[in-house]
Amino acid sequence: MTMSVKEILAGSAKVGDTVTVKGWVRTRRDSKAGLSFVAINDGSCFDSVQVIAANNLNNYDDEITKLTKDCAVIASGELVESPGKGQSFEIQASQIEVVGWVENPESYPVSPKRHTVEYLREVAHLRPRTNLFGAVARVRNCVSQAIHQFLNQEGFSWVHTPLITASDCEGAGEMFRLSTLDMMNLPRTDKGEIDYSQDFFGQESFLTVSGQLNVEAYCLAMSKVYTFGPTFRAENSNTSRHLAEFWMIEPEIAFADLNDNAALAERMLKFVSAELLEKCADDMAFFAQRVDKAAISRLETISQSSFEIMDYSTAIEHLLKAKKKFEFPVEWGVDLASEHERYLCEDLVGKPVTVMNYPKGIKSFYMRLNDDNKTVAAMDVLAPGVGEIIGGSQREERLDVLKTRMAEVGVSEEHLGWYLDLRRYGTVPHAGFGLGLERLVSYVTGVANVRDVIPFPRTPGNIPF
Amino acid sequence: MTMSVKEILAGSAKVGDTVTVKGWVRTRRDSKAGLSFVAINDGSCFDSVQVIAANNLNNYDDEITKLTKDCAVIASGELVESPGKGQSFEIQASQIEVVGWVENPESYPVSPKRHTVEYLREVAHLRPRTNLFGAVARVRNCVSQAIHQFLNQEGFSWVHTPLITASDCEGAGEMFRLSTLDMMNLPRTDKGEIDYSQDFFGQESFLTVSGQLNVEAYCLAMSKVYTFGPTFRAENSNTSRHLAEFWMIEPEIAFADLNDNAALAERMLKFVSAELLEKCADDMAFFAQRVDKAAISRLETISQSSFEIMDYSTAIEHLLKAKKKFEFPVEWGVDLASEHERYLCEDLVGKPVTVMNYPKGIKSFYMRLNDDNKTVAAMDVLAPGVGEIIGGSQREERLDVLKTRMAEVGVSEEHLGWYLDLRRYGTVPHAGFGLGLERLVSYVTGVANVRDVIPFPRTPGNIPF
Repeated sequence: MTMSVKEILAGSAKVGDTVTVKGWVRTRRDSKAGLSFVAINDGSCFDSVQVIAANNLNNYDDEITKLTKDCAVIASGELVESPGKGQSFEIQASQIEVVGWVENPESYPVSPKRHTVEYLREVAHLRPRTNLFGAVARVRNCVSQAIHQFLNQEGFSWVHTPLITASDCEGAGEMFRLSTLDMMNLPRTDKGEIDYSQDFFGQESFLTVSGQLNVEAYCLAMSKVYTFGPTFRAENSNTSRHLAEFWMIEPEIAFADLNDNAALAERMLKFVSAELLEKCADDMAFFAQRVDKAAISRLETISQSSFEIMDYSTAIEHLLKAKKKFEFPVEWGVDLASEHERYLCEDLVGKPVTVMNYPKGIKSFYMRLNDDNKTVAAMDVLAPGVGEIIGGSQREERLDVLKTRMAEVGVSEEHLGWYLDLRRYGTVPHAGFGLGLERLVSYVTGVANVRDVIPFPRTPGNIPF
Repeated sequence: MTMSVKEILAGSAKVGDTVTVKGWVRTRRDSKAGLSFVAINDGSCFDSVQVIAANNLNNYDDEITKLTKDCAVIASGELVESPGKGQSFEIQASQIEVVGWVENPESYPVSPKRHTVEYLREVAHLRPRTNLFGAVARVRNCVSQAIHQFLNQEGFSWVHTPLITASDCEGAGEMFRLSTLDMMNLPRTDKGEIDYSQDFFGQESFLTVSGQLNVEAYCLAMSKVYTFGPTFRAENSNTSRHLAEFWMIEPEIAFADLNDNAALAERMLKFVSAELLEKCADDMAFFAQRVDKAAISRLETISQSSFEIMDYSTAIEHLLKAKKKFEFPVEWGVDLASEHERYLCEDLVGKPVTVMNYPKGIKSFYMRLNDDNKTVAAMDVLAPGVGEIIGGSQREERLDVLKTRMAEVGVSEEHLGWYLDLRRYGTVPHAGFGLGLERLVSYVTGVANVRDVIPFPRTPGNIPF
């Protein structure tokens, strides 16, 4: 019977059964006694299964002893107990069919030696064949599935908000313009401006920076909703924490305030951590051993202890009292810089910190104005090592206050009439947040650069594959 | 205790419990005896819960008798058995708090009367508050969650392939160009062409039409993978089956041929159908009653019977023998037009049909050439009412054959060197397909236009919200 390596190692077959496994050679070792030990990996789990090939196999000399890393094979044989340590089962091969060879193994881009992550980005199509990137892919999948499962069992519906949008309303960042106009021969209006009325959508259009405003419309009909999709920033940021295209999860809850919002974020991160500990134990063990010693203990801390909640004003007091020298000055009213965020969660608290109630001047127009008239019901969850992984707020549900805030910051009512409608008709207190998937995966694995936790990263000047 | 309408109607609380429900008024009916019957919906399920308000409530005259559709309320009271038919429970209100009124109920865009779907598209931000669009949103969520659950339990990993791409390799359709260049002042090369080296990615870039080529790279490391994300076509198609932005699911399996591929597609559609029958029974009952009588029986058919599998050549024979007059001529070698597809699945077979082995001339370069040298291992799943909902193929895994096919159709090896690498290093037979989410939701609900099964549709000349 054909089984995945994961099923075989988990004991889904009995000793004595004939099993078939299909995958790629990780290593081959030949003994002097005329035996070859071939480790086969199929990506279903971190570990490979050991297949023992004796020299009486008919293709032993011609093929088996020539196998190199990532040759594709189909191996069949009897499942036996493994005498070696570490693994419980191995396969005594009765047949190994070579399905695909590796051309010029010496020049194979992901040959079995140490490669830097920078080099591996240049061969992003082959890097999932390495231990590191295979583990990242499985952890990323596990995190994503866990988020769907968690939100679904809490009664949330996944809503597919549009990626293409006509307005940069949120002001969350620079946008990519989208067009099908002939660039060599752009149509012009009488005034000499670009005539976007002739473009695909009949007006200027962009890639969205957030699905929030759209998902609020569904929140005010279905109570609990979320987005899970790609998001874009056309910012020229070459840092380890920024991508031009990244994935974001944005839950939105009706009849909820900022505390409900923070509680949801915490429950979600706890659920994800518990799932990773249970379902990706082998991958997490690898990260703990090779990338970041704290990888497993961090998940245990998240899943067991409550998050620190801190008012922005308190955070400022802590920063002012800190013995550390900061590059950027601290005073009430400033946005927190990365160094401040890291001080709070890494030095002061040592775990994720939820900072709440920021000055209105540094936050978006749609965030709910607090009674002090100075702060808004915003929150950021800061994680050691990566900084902000979640940003959220209670939304301004009062029509008059929202209009005043829009006027203050210069957002036109004309473009957002539909958004104001949500406050005209059956408005309710509601709140939500955005979780950056890459930052979360970076945080849980300890892999420092977000370019290494997304399959094909898009950054300024960089778009191979 | 606060509960969703779904939980209350499902019997999660006991008769005699005090429960609180938060939602929006669907209807209000006043009896002469001084009682008001307020139906409250929170989007958690199709049905509303009935709340009975007596005139001894302190805001009865001032507020409760003035409630109109979609006023937001929080109602608390004792859960009692419902004497009426249809529902088992209702709430005897001890308090109804009005959280958000509806401004000018007479001019409210989704007031409680019949609206056409065409009109409701113009108020897409409010249409989820109608029975039809609420049901569509829940069914769409259920389909999406079922797909993740099915693929996950079959051992597939979700891979987030990039949306931004540098090449139109697949030729699946017209693409949107993406740019951050100043359109009023475009940089030019010495030759007078647009100088895309100064653009964000240092070259011309587009929105992808498929994640397939990228996900193949992960397939050849992880064996079972899939994409689930938005996809784009800049085609000027104003039909009920086309969107400029739509969602697609693309599974890809290693060590698999076209039959494995068709079997996976069938298992997946069966699983989705069973989930819908179980989890969205109320929504599906609504579709069967109001939209398409066959909505439920269709799901039962899919989940219980096997799909028809038909060779392209056989399909052509059937079409040639058909008594029906076709607009487009039929002969071996032509692509099937919509009328042909509908004849096959609607008139000839009466259920989904998987057509296989199309002439190579009408299919993409990456599809595996059959031994007859005339056809490729491609398949389309055609569904009654909507036509193609799945398109897939076994991929050409042989380096030399793939190169020949690329040369034949004029795809440059230079841009796809990385894709050829997948055949140079450990290649294996593999196959996959793309499932259009909107067409599937349209098919299962009977809602005829894909614009009505996605929250905010993007079509030529159309990008509000």
